[in-house]
Amino acid sequence: MASPAVSFAKDNQQRFLGELKDLLRIPSVSTAPEHKDDVRRAADFVANDLRRIGMENVEVIPTKGHPLIYADWLHAPGQPTVLCYAHYDVQPAEPLNEWISPPFEPTERNQNIYARGAVDDKGQLWMEIKAIEALMKGHSGKLPLNVKFIIEGEEEVGGESIAAYVRKEKKKLSADFALVCDTELFAPNLPTLCVGLRGLVYTEIEAQGAKTDLHSGMYGGAAPNPLFALVEIISKLKDAKGRILVPGFYTKVKAPSKDELKAWKRLPFNEEHYRKTEVGSKVLTGEPGYSVLYRTWARPTLEVHGMPGGFVAAGAKTVIPARASAKVSMRLVPNQDPDDILKRYTNYVKKLTPKGIDINIKVYSKGPASVISTDNRYVQAATEAMHDVFKKDTVFIRSGGSIPIVTDFQDVLKLPSVMMGFGLPDDNLHAPNEKFHIPNFYRGIESIIRFFEKLGK
Amino acid sequence: MASPAVSFAKDNQQRFLGELKDLLRIPSVSTAPEHKDDVRRAADFVANDLRRIGMENVEVIPTKGHPLIYADWLHAPGQPTVLCYAHYDVQPAEPLNEWISPPFEPTERNQNIYARGAVDDKGQLWMEIKAIEALMKGHSGKLPLNVKFIIEGEEEVGGESIAAYVRKEKKKLSADFALVCDTELFAPNLPTLCVGLRGLVYTEIEAQGAKTDLHSGMYGGAAPNPLFALVEIISKLKDAKGRILVPGFYTKVKAPSKDELKAWKRLPFNEEHYRKTEVGSKVLTGEPGYSVLYRTWARPTLEVHGMPGGFVAAGAKTVIPARASAKVSMRLVPNQDPDDILKRYTNYVKKLTPKGIDINIKVYSKGPASVISTDNRYVQAATEAMHDVFKKDTVFIRSGGSIPIVTDFQDVLKLPSVMMGFGLPDDNLHAPNEKFHIPNFYRGIESIIRFFEKLGK
Repeated sequence: MASPAVSFAKDNQQRFLGELKDLLRIPSVSTAPEHKDDVRRAADFVANDLRRIGMENVEVIPTKGHPLIYADWLHAPGQPTVLCYAHYDVQPAEPLNEWISPPFEPTERNQNIYARGAVDDKGQLWMEIKAIEALMKGHSGKLPLNVKFIIEGEEEVGGESIAAYVRKEKKKLSADFALVCDTELFAPNLPTLCVGLRGLVYTEIEAQGAKTDLHSGMYGGAAPNPLFALVEIISKLKDAKGRILVPGFYTKVKAPSKDELKAWKRLPFNEEHYRKTEVGSKVLTGEPGYSVLYRTWARPTLEVHGMPGGFVAAGAKTVIPARASAKVSMRLVPNQDPDDILKRYTNYVKKLTPKGIDINIKVYSKGPASVISTDNRYVQAATEAMHDVFKKDTVFIRSGGSIPIVTDFQDVLKLPSVMMGFGLPDDNLHAPNEKFHIPNFYRGIESIIRFFEKLGK
Repeated sequence: MASPAVSFAKDNQQRFLGELKDLLRIPSVSTAPEHKDDVRRAADFVANDLRRIGMENVEVIPTKGHPLIYADWLHAPGQPTVLCYAHYDVQPAEPLNEWISPPFEPTERNQNIYARGAVDDKGQLWMEIKAIEALMKGHSGKLPLNVKFIIEGEEEVGGESIAAYVRKEKKKLSADFALVCDTELFAPNLPTLCVGLRGLVYTEIEAQGAKTDLHSGMYGGAAPNPLFALVEIISKLKDAKGRILVPGFYTKVKAPSKDELKAWKRLPFNEEHYRKTEVGSKVLTGEPGYSVLYRTWARPTLEVHGMPGGFVAAGAKTVIPARASAKVSMRLVPNQDPDDILKRYTNYVKKLTPKGIDINIKVYSKGPASVISTDNRYVQAATEAMHDVFKKDTVFIRSGGSIPIVTDFQDVLKLPSVMMGFGLPDDNLHAPNEKFHIPNFYRGIESIIRFFEKLGK
């Protein structure tokens, strides 16, 4: 029994998808200075559509980095207020040669739309906006509840501006709950709400040895090599079994409850299938004695993402680089304090630094883990709405990723977040050939419509 | 008492320098596929000048890689034959932003000429050719000895083509000795002959983990990280004191003679001055118990030059790369067999490779160390010629670098090499702001003229 809003959404699926493609064509890579104007264009594109569908007080808010977008519609007295969050920036598309179709030319194959940002997060941002458009149409120009949007363009680079804005504009952003669409279904056709996220501390260790690049024949045996120094340091940050060796790193770690661990065991998950189809490696790695879901959702990890410096082009160059650096991040779990962890990490890295090498640690982002309570009417309504769409019971999962804004909503604005996401585990987030399953785009829109209609009754 | 040839060289210094600048403007970076045509242009430039000055049988010889250049003049019966060697290819110029003047726009400052290849090796190649031009002019169109040139364009990438050519064309390249101009003076104004070189094995360890790049939030704790695997491997190849840990690595190492070690101690060398002015680091590194000259000339070393893979642009990307690699080289000393070392290294790297990671070891170059005897008339004449120019006794040194062709001349063609080089220790070889001291360019030309005139008497 579809509401007029649901019917409108169904009738307009093709147009909605076409609009999403236009948004995906804008390469809004937030980490790349050369794409600054593209990020701005994406912000304007989103703001214009918010105006067009009838949202009010639409603002593109300048920041030190990329703009925020605010909009509201507050004419449902007595009804709850939702703060809708998503982001319009995307990860870099590199390595480009591994994309089957170009990252910024959205292409349909097998009911999927392939493009950088398809699922993370433009597709899911567009679900929110299209749900509101359908609700407006289905309710004669009104909405069943009060709606605010806060949309950012720096999610992929640490989200500094929205963190500052949330602290500054508590009143403006006040609401009863937040809707965050930036996560995924546990399995195709399995309605899922995400109730936990890992935190993140992302650093770059910059190392300097000699004053200039040196010939490794002439100077090998005398000049310090900052790249080798980084190798020495990083090799001591984590052991071969995946245990992080920073002193005191695990002291505060809070384990999941027994009930949560039991529920995870009931999820349809096969480690061997996951290894073969998602990871595609010979073996899985990580701490012995923990399941894959435990390790990726509720255990802290440390990774090195790239080591710029020296000679990285094709071929051979016999150089001892003067400078090199390493991008190293840690995922945090509940009760680990990012400031405390960063301090311990910094001290340890300094202690490990060999003589003759100067280091400097840059911090790109720093946010704690968060776990959301499930016993509130918003999570309840979301669960029912997804049941209506999927005809199945919703499962509660965590994600190994980090959405620092969810912690800010909880700690600063005192809002519970409903993390309703429609990605799939094989959507190639942050990787070449990122995709969004098109039926999930439509189911996402319908789920949000039904969710808000339930709350606004 | 200058010969007509020396006078001609002095009168034509400015023109010689101008020609060198033209050659330096050609970015003949042999390791970069996009510069293939430039390398060819540099070869043609050199061949045309050899023709112009009166050399005969000038050939630009195609190879699998970059062309060789051959030329000869063989009309001095009864006189010795020299095989002149140098190379016209250069190292990449990166990092470009550290050059004060552009690497391929030769610029004069403080009696130096700054450009990629200025001293390594175009400037020294040009000394040889200009010496022959002056000898022709000074001896009425004849040369005092028989001359062959073999000039390569792959010295910076392993020299595969010349190695094959030397083996194939033993007769064509037969001579009494070789002149190799690709080394440096031990100190400004100190005539120097290089009598020892380290060998080189240059590899790239390619590592693969997952089938595609993965999000470090979603997969951190489960997916193998090839970049971290490389860190683990490389950290175990060499200890913090610079001792290489590949089993059996030092077994065959032959130490320098007591006399040679004594002579090195008499050289004007101050480790603290070297640290401050050449290396510019806080401390010098390397095996305890050996002097800097011993460590860089006669001890094997291992360096990592670059680790491509993952995210190396500015900013943060939370990726677990599917693939990464590390460029690792070893400098070898006398009696270490490159094939044996490569085998030991390969076995050890494979043994160190963590589960879940596939590795492949690419070999870019592989050549043994060489030590040249000093008791032959060619080294003798070179010593006297340099004394005439510098008015000082010549010192015999080694170099930590590698010129594999010197070993081939010795082993395949049975030629002693005279390594007469006019670079300076602070010439920034392989680094930004490479330079050649212009007076040394002129002294090099005069030294070669006098050297050949002494032999052809």
